[in-house]
Amino acid sequence: MTVTADTRPLDVLADFPAIPEDWAYLDTAATAQKPQPVIDAIARGYGETYATVHRGVYQRSADMTLAYEAARRRIADFLNARAAEEIVFTRGATEAINLVATCWAGSQLQAGDRILLSQLEHHSNIVPWQMIADKVGAEIDVLPLTDDHRIDLDAMAAMITERHRLVALAHISNVLGSVLDARRAADIVHGVGAKLLLDGCQAVPRLGVDVQALDCDFYAFSGHKLYGPTGIGALWARAELLDAMPPYQGGGSMIDKVSFERTTYAPPPGRFEAGTPHIVGALGLHAAIDYVSGIGLDRIHAHEAALVAKAREALSQINSVRVYGPEDSAGIVSFNIKRVHPHDAGTILDESRVAIRAGHHCAQPLMDALGVAATARASFGVYNSAADVDALVAGIERVTRIFG
Amino acid sequence: MTVTADTRPLDVLADFPAIPEDWAYLDTAATAQKPQPVIDAIARGYGETYATVHRGVYQRSADMTLAYEAARRRIADFLNARAAEEIVFTRGATEAINLVATCWAGSQLQAGDRILLSQLEHHSNIVPWQMIADKVGAEIDVLPLTDDHRIDLDAMAAMITERHRLVALAHISNVLGSVLDARRAADIVHGVGAKLLLDGCQAVPRLGVDVQALDCDFYAFSGHKLYGPTGIGALWARAELLDAMPPYQGGGSMIDKVSFERTTYAPPPGRFEAGTPHIVGALGLHAAIDYVSGIGLDRIHAHEAALVAKAREALSQINSVRVYGPEDSAGIVSFNIKRVHPHDAGTILDESRVAIRAGHHCAQPLMDALGVAATARASFGVYNSAADVDALVAGIERVTRIFG
Repeated sequence: MTVTADTRPLDVLADFPAIPEDWAYLDTAATAQKPQPVIDAIARGYGETYATVHRGVYQRSADMTLAYEAARRRIADFLNARAAEEIVFTRGATEAINLVATCWAGSQLQAGDRILLSQLEHHSNIVPWQMIADKVGAEIDVLPLTDDHRIDLDAMAAMITERHRLVALAHISNVLGSVLDARRAADIVHGVGAKLLLDGCQAVPRLGVDVQALDCDFYAFSGHKLYGPTGIGALWARAELLDAMPPYQGGGSMIDKVSFERTTYAPPPGRFEAGTPHIVGALGLHAAIDYVSGIGLDRIHAHEAALVAKAREALSQINSVRVYGPEDSAGIVSFNIKRVHPHDAGTILDESRVAIRAGHHCAQPLMDALGVAATARASFGVYNSAADVDALVAGIERVTRIFG
Repeated sequence: MTVTADTRPLDVLADFPAIPEDWAYLDTAATAQKPQPVIDAIARGYGETYATVHRGVYQRSADMTLAYEAARRRIADFLNARAAEEIVFTRGATEAINLVATCWAGSQLQAGDRILLSQLEHHSNIVPWQMIADKVGAEIDVLPLTDDHRIDLDAMAAMITERHRLVALAHISNVLGSVLDARRAADIVHGVGAKLLLDGCQAVPRLGVDVQALDCDFYAFSGHKLYGPTGIGALWARAELLDAMPPYQGGGSMIDKVSFERTTYAPPPGRFEAGTPHIVGALGLHAAIDYVSGIGLDRIHAHEAALVAKAREALSQINSVRVYGPEDSAGIVSFNIKRVHPHDAGTILDESRVAIRAGHHCAQPLMDALGVAATARASFGVYNSAADVDALVAGIERVTRIFG
């Protein structure tokens, strides 16, 4: 991909009145701030259009059902899914991955089967697999990273066997910004007949994602990292995989007919959406997708790549700073300052009105691989500009002076 | 309980600008409309205070963490829990019940153990138990109803055995409004050493709930039926039960330390809250609890009981109408009109600007027991008045004339 040098702002700050002018919010990889159109859609959803879905015989409920299902179609279009029925609403990416672990792996894997993960995965793409592997007697193998902190696909081609049934990888690392060559990964995975799950949390806000072009089998993402509401996210899966999966949670809406003698289940996606859904969350996510699509994912990607390049270059010039991840990392920069704990750096940066994240970023095995307990992480969004990078660099220079 | 004859409005309509003056919204048992203070809290949550929780080193994230945990404490107070740590945030009551089924029943029940439900349960309090019973080889028994459609606790005292490990009952029936004598149920259940789960979906919006006084073991409810946001709810459970339960979903926040060799888990409630939570949902639920508490649950209960009494009386005087449920049902009236399908009744009522629900209400086994395929259901909330009952009755008279 070509990284343009254009670090001019995307000119969207007016959409984010909740971001003070003097504040550099650099924690978008944790959660994105919300543009006003998303907040307005949520307020309208709880206001003059509010009703339940799938059940009411009155007009407002019928309208709300249409709006809820329109959100599902919007997500399907956004990911270039083949059909809206391939989209399951979840609480977020974590639940989406747990759903695949419980329903797909729980019914498909047997003792002796193997799951392949990578060293840089988020806990949400490790722990669900550990839990289900324990249950079914499967084993987990771990892909190493290249020297520049990408998932090593050459190693993958060498390591993968026909005992591997599932490979689960971050499309973009939440710590390093490393972008996976997902299509190459899919080809390797399918070469042994396994399935590929991509954790798309960090990818959907900063890359155009086309699940058909990527040729993956499952794709998970969260709404709140995509400028949308909390408590909503989605799983995309090939229709034939969903069709074969048993239900996840039991309750209303996921059934066909309930009796104490025998209960039968609804077809996907209803089968996986027990209970009253996060109706307004779906509407807010729809608005968020409209918002980022209006700017254009290509523009967002180029903008964030330019900010990352500028940040990496400036940070590399500070002697005591070590920067992690590949040169072309997407929207995210992790680093450490010699003899300064990242938490202390983060606290001092906060005094300078720069918000970063410090810690293990829910990726402790990656911290182990990097040989550190924690990193500082700056991550960018549509509202950031070169001035935010300058504020970050100035703040870090202040940190280095304080810890001299 | 004393039902006052006071059907005067609670004078809160100004808080619900999204309810048109000429609209009788009688579907609060499906979902409640939202008061402006809740919508404002949500908009503020996504606006000038928005940040992630539990992780940020900057001030806004620290403040949001305090607000999120304050919501947990508010729920604990609302239910009179012993500690905030007894509250687990879930997507809603359905997920709360699934969590208990998966984590408690899944680890505690063995082949041959029995679960006791009632004939009037919502699917969300049936299907999760069927799913886990299938897995562990447990059996389900079903409590019958009394002639006036309450859960028959005399039958329960006679039927329960020491093989019964778990009894799961609706605190208030979502179809009939029948209020369970929960304390008597708890005494019977504990007499054989079993645990009692109460589905509190319909109770928390219309009764003061005190889990210590009720002496139950698990209590589940949804935010959206309590005038709060969608996608959020809570499970209350005795601390010692949560302590002994394995995790639910795997991911961030629910772990202590993750490695590919061995992952250890956080103590409750974090152990059951994998991933970024529905942060703003928690804040909105806090506002909703403040809202109903400001009116007073006793006042709400008396008001809805008066509306129910008025509705039952008026409906009983229409020859072709059959009313279900006990005389003192709480906030909910189910009925049928001879030779009229409830869906048709609902559609015609919608033309008269009266919104009711028609169908099986996610309680097909109850429909079987009542010998019907469906009922029409009117359910009340704080915004309803005697005028809404009049509109309902006039609408039903119109239905009977049309189908004459």
